[in-house]
Amino acid sequence: MSDQPSDTCDTAPQADQPLVIFTPSGKRGRVAPGTSVLAAARQLGVDLDSVCGGRGICSKCQVTPSYGEFAKHGLTVRADALSEWNAVEQRYDDKRGLPTGRRLGCQACVSGDVVLDVPPESQVHRQVIRKSADTRPMVMDPATRLYFVEVAEPDMHEPSGDFERLAQALAQQWEVTGVTADPTLLAKLQKQLRKGNWQVTVAVYRDHTGAAPRILDIWPGLHEQGLYGLAIDLGSTTIAAHLTDLETGEVKAASGLMNPQIRFGEDLMSRVSYVMMNPGGEAELTAVVRTALADLAKALATEAGIDAALIVETTIVCNPVMHHLLLGIDPTELGQAPFALAVSEALSLPATDLDLVSINPRARTYLLPCIAGHVGADAAAVALATAPETSDDLMLVIDVGTNAEILLGDKSRVLACSSPTGPAFEGAQISSGQRAAPGAIERVEIDPVTKEPRFRVIGIDLWSDHADFAAAVAQTGVTGICGSGIIEAVAEMRMAGLVDPSGLIGSAAQTDTQRSEPEGRTHSYLIHDGTVVGGPRITVTQGDIRAIQLAKSALYAGARLLMDERGADRVDRVVLAGAFGAHISPKHAMVLGMIPDAPLANVSSAGNAAGTGARMALCSIAARAQIEAGVRNITKVETAIAPRFQEHFVAANAIPHATDPFPELLSVVTLPAVSFNAGGGDGASGGRRRRRR
Amino acid sequence: MSDQPSDTCDTAPQADQPLVIFTPSGKRGRVAPGTSVLAAARQLGVDLDSVCGGRGICSKCQVTPSYGEFAKHGLTVRADALSEWNAVEQRYDDKRGLPTGRRLGCQACVSGDVVLDVPPESQVHRQVIRKSADTRPMVMDPATRLYFVEVAEPDMHEPSGDFERLAQALAQQWEVTGVTADPTLLAKLQKQLRKGNWQVTVAVYRDHTGAAPRILDIWPGLHEQGLYGLAIDLGSTTIAAHLTDLETGEVKAASGLMNPQIRFGEDLMSRVSYVMMNPGGEAELTAVVRTALADLAKALATEAGIDAALIVETTIVCNPVMHHLLLGIDPTELGQAPFALAVSEALSLPATDLDLVSINPRARTYLLPCIAGHVGADAAAVALATAPETSDDLMLVIDVGTNAEILLGDKSRVLACSSPTGPAFEGAQISSGQRAAPGAIERVEIDPVTKEPRFRVIGIDLWSDHADFAAAVAQTGVTGICGSGIIEAVAEMRMAGLVDPSGLIGSAAQTDTQRSEPEGRTHSYLIHDGTVVGGPRITVTQGDIRAIQLAKSALYAGARLLMDERGADRVDRVVLAGAFGAHISPKHAMVLGMIPDAPLANVSSAGNAAGTGARMALCSIAARAQIEAGVRNITKVETAIAPRFQEHFVAANAIPHATDPFPELLSVVTLPAVSFNAGGGDGASGGRRRRRR
Repeated sequence: MSDQPSDTCDTAPQADQPLVIFTPSGKRGRVAPGTSVLAAARQLGVDLDSVCGGRGICSKCQVTPSYGEFAKHGLTVRADALSEWNAVEQRYDDKRGLPTGRRLGCQACVSGDVVLDVPPESQVHRQVIRKSADTRPMVMDPATRLYFVEVAEPDMHEPSGDFERLAQALAQQWEVTGVTADPTLLAKLQKQLRKGNWQVTVAVYRDHTGAAPRILDIWPGLHEQGLYGLAIDLGSTTIAAHLTDLETGEVKAASGLMNPQIRFGEDLMSRVSYVMMNPGGEAELTAVVRTALADLAKALATEAGIDAALIVETTIVCNPVMHHLLLGIDPTELGQAPFALAVSEALSLPATDLDLVSINPRARTYLLPCIAGHVGADAAAVALATAPETSDDLMLVIDVGTNAEILLGDKSRVLACSSPTGPAFEGAQISSGQRAAPGAIERVEIDPVTKEPRFRVIGIDLWSDHADFAAAVAQTGVTGICGSGIIEAVAEMRMAGLVDPSGLIGSAAQTDTQRSEPEGRTHSYLIHDGTVVGGPRITVTQGDIRAIQLAKSALYAGARLLMDERGADRVDRVVLAGAFGAHISPKHAMVLGMIPDAPLANVSSAGNAAGTGARMALCSIAARAQIEAGVRNITKVETAIAPRFQEHFVAANAIPHATDPFPELLSVVTLPAVSFNAGGGDGASGGRRRRRR
Repeated sequence: MSDQPSDTCDTAPQADQPLVIFTPSGKRGRVAPGTSVLAAARQLGVDLDSVCGGRGICSKCQVTPSYGEFAKHGLTVRADALSEWNAVEQRYDDKRGLPTGRRLGCQACVSGDVVLDVPPESQVHRQVIRKSADTRPMVMDPATRLYFVEVAEPDMHEPSGDFERLAQALAQQWEVTGVTADPTLLAKLQKQLRKGNWQVTVAVYRDHTGAAPRILDIWPGLHEQGLYGLAIDLGSTTIAAHLTDLETGEVKAASGLMNPQIRFGEDLMSRVSYVMMNPGGEAELTAVVRTALADLAKALATEAGIDAALIVETTIVCNPVMHHLLLGIDPTELGQAPFALAVSEALSLPATDLDLVSINPRARTYLLPCIAGHVGADAAAVALATAPETSDDLMLVIDVGTNAEILLGDKSRVLACSSPTGPAFEGAQISSGQRAAPGAIERVEIDPVTKEPRFRVIGIDLWSDHADFAAAVAQTGVTGICGSGIIEAVAEMRMAGLVDPSGLIGSAAQTDTQRSEPEGRTHSYLIHDGTVVGGPRITVTQGDIRAIQLAKSALYAGARLLMDERGADRVDRVVLAGAFGAHISPKHAMVLGMIPDAPLANVSSAGNAAGTGARMALCSIAARAQIEAGVRNITKVETAIAPRFQEHFVAANAIPHATDPFPELLSVVTLPAVSFNAGGGDGASGGRRRRRR
């Protein structure tokens, strides 16, 4: 066979040997004439991919040679610097096409000085291009990789199992030693080997733990349909997943669905209560969430048009209660001091252990580690994505949900806690509150002079004072107010003088507007009256303000507690994570006193950082090792027992800022457009914020 | 707590320190005064058990001190050589009773020179007493052991999972590091820890492969119900299993059932054919055999009166076709050259992978390695039990079934092959043949003068010429002739001159007896006419003799082929393994030319050696390592392609011995009474063999 793997040349490089320079890495060195480009890359430690092992069939090792004068390198590359285009390359080009100027690295041999460009798709550890700037770069380093091997045929005189000969081929051709396999893989092994005429591609899972590598699947010949993974962000309310190409890191499909456990309780503690009241009830909760994951995986494969059996890995991030309920563990201990997790370390499991039966039957699942009883794998994923431990300046990371997870740190030390903000920030326990959905008020402004409000609703690109707004909103109506809307409303009310520092809404007389209406023994503020079109009256009540005050005090107190532990009285940067964090207005958050003061330009959103962390762990075993080590180094702070937390909580009750704290900065604040199962409409609208005064 | 683990003393021994002598090991040394006996045992490398880690609650470390003069050791042991009987010992004695003279090794401390006897039940690596002399000794060294640990309680200030604290306790208290656990274990962890007030017993599986240890189960407090394992001998016809105590090696229950695959084909090749004719049909065969194993496990637990969840390990031995069918692998490749196994190495699996759902849900299964496509894990188990690789003289081991597995070797080298004897030796394809069951003729003698036969049937302790025989046999009747019966019949016919060397039965005139009856173009010999009581006429036909000739030629040719390979023209010892081997008469086998000539006293039975091997692998990870290495060192010889096999086969067709080959030895041959799902009645009857002439 002419397409046998090329041997690397073991002789020491000599000065008269050809010089090879690889770009973009800049790696260079001399190799013996006749060395293949692939072998040269391996000798010089250049990241050049190959699945077929140099047999000229996978084309993963493509390079682009450059010819001519390279003054920078003091080099002339002659037209015959590489061996001639050969029959294997011609065969590949005829069959599948090679881009102009490209050569197969396993076929082209070096005969003179040459400059070779390795295109991104030929790099094993290619970097994944990502939209969000506030998360660390992601390099492909997946646990599961494809290997094309030629397996020795059985020999009656030297009897050995087909599996043992496959294992031998992996060891000899790829230095993958000691592989194991499940019975279901052994059951399909013999047919695939014979179908491929003893040439097969295997998917081998080998993680960072040193456990024996496992063959997850086998295909006859060269497998070209790729491998996929699923990064799952399992929230209390929604389950979101990214179907990701394990070779490129590309997201092929993303989707979400409601967590079906909601029928056992909207919030986590009510689900814990359900289990406490119904012993063994965790089995029901476990079953429904597992079914949902399997369904979601199947739906994503269909959406992306791939065979679900090509999904060989999943990673999961979630809070501790969801973590336990997914694993089938009674979460009761998480509902009471000392909030003991059953298990905190990262787990690597067969996906079937979680009844993820819709994907490859031998797929693996990786659950990120939990940090503490209230600070889960979701917070660990946020830490992985935002990397506070690599920050030069002091960074506060807040992931707001029913619980807020808070990280504070820099290169020297990272601390973490969670704070029981309750569901007010998600629009729950608010009189006109609702989940972020079309029709919900997500932005509010109140004119400080006229005290008149204007607002925007999710799904409509106009403010409510626009002439076309009524027509635009006719379909959904204005149905309520979501988390980001209530925050803006309360902050704007404070800035407009409708609310005093203690949070009390003034009467119409006190506030000089008829929108302040008596309600019970206090007042409420009318944002929108939809009764003329049969819609609701949307008001902010005194109770709403109290709920927001409690929630923001808890959040602020958690951040302050970490600052105390750290001995810091200010932070340099604030990163808001999570769907809610992507939609919250930093200015209003600061007016409210939700977050410690920081230069407004240094407040940013990391988008769905938990989801990003899940995807990083999916694409990189180095990332898994990183977060496992990182979690061990995080100082855990328990808010429930810290006396200073109570002090901070009480002190934070007031709404300090009567005016816009940083008016000069408002025009430059632009929240990045990150959205996924979003906490409120189109984040890009932030760029169109009105400049006031 | 007064029953905390004792610390070992780290100071170097000094001449004035007390001398401690342990029996039966003879190990001795000086220890610091006040050292506990358990600590002293550990310092001196004495095998003294402890599950509770020296807390005085498990009583596994009992010793018997001896007092007085020990001239042999030059030692006087004073009455105060050990510390006084303490409160912990008193508590244990009150609660459960300590045998007179015994002390708890973890409580009694050394204060003067002392001699201490370690009773067998206090040894970790206790030797298992076994009946069969022809198998190697068995030492307890199981993969799964119990550990009693005290786990740190959760601490909000240092949050960590309960599992992580348990793992830490195992590492600190037992040096068991890096444990893992399945989600189902994690799900029960928290309740057991709290129920046991942070004292629990865990069963940890740690085998010889270096894989991370796994916690298989957890119990609150000290678990005293033991751990069990199941050694399964999965035959084509019968499935036999021994329920074994994993602490003592004691067999608690043994039972067998028919392999339900029989309905897809009596012999293996017809089952392979079934799969070939019905693609995907292996799934049916797999399902029925897995169900049978699960049922058998459950039945054995019930019989032994133990909770089936205490069965935490199983080992399985079987031939390659059963091996593949159990694993769900299509056995087609095993039915045709080159007889490629899908996998030959030993496999360690979750028992649930084989649907063994009736035992502990986290139980492990170990399948012994196969040797070659025709020489399975059953042959490996025979090799493990009979240990030819440790033999000084040249040893031939034959396991007779539908295929005969043959091992030949000694310390220098071991060879193996299988030979297609067909089912004649099991009574199939014989005109009056039947499986070994009550009513079957199992022993035959023919008077060389009168040519009259007498016989015995399975289940009846009398020869057929005894006056009470007719009455004794009335219940079952004489129904047919089993494997050992037909072998004796043919050999006796040859010795009585009824059959010539070519295997031809003479006519009544030639043989001088009316029992030679014309049948077709040849003759048959009448052994028993049961027609008067409505039973069958049992004859040996010319066809029967041809079938036995074919089978014995194949067996002999296989043995000769190995002898050729080895360059040997004789063997020193012959060991017959298997149920059939336990019942075959060595003399008759040699008359027939089934086995190569050897001194008759050196022909013995190893009983159900395959089952013994399975039990050894169950009780000892060293045995697993031993057979895995052993199998690699065995030279595999393929009979199907060896021209010399054909030559030997043809040459072996004749029945050489016209007379008893070793008459002087007959009185001393006593087949050991080994029987389990036996190939024919009570093996002890061999001792009552009539001395002739």
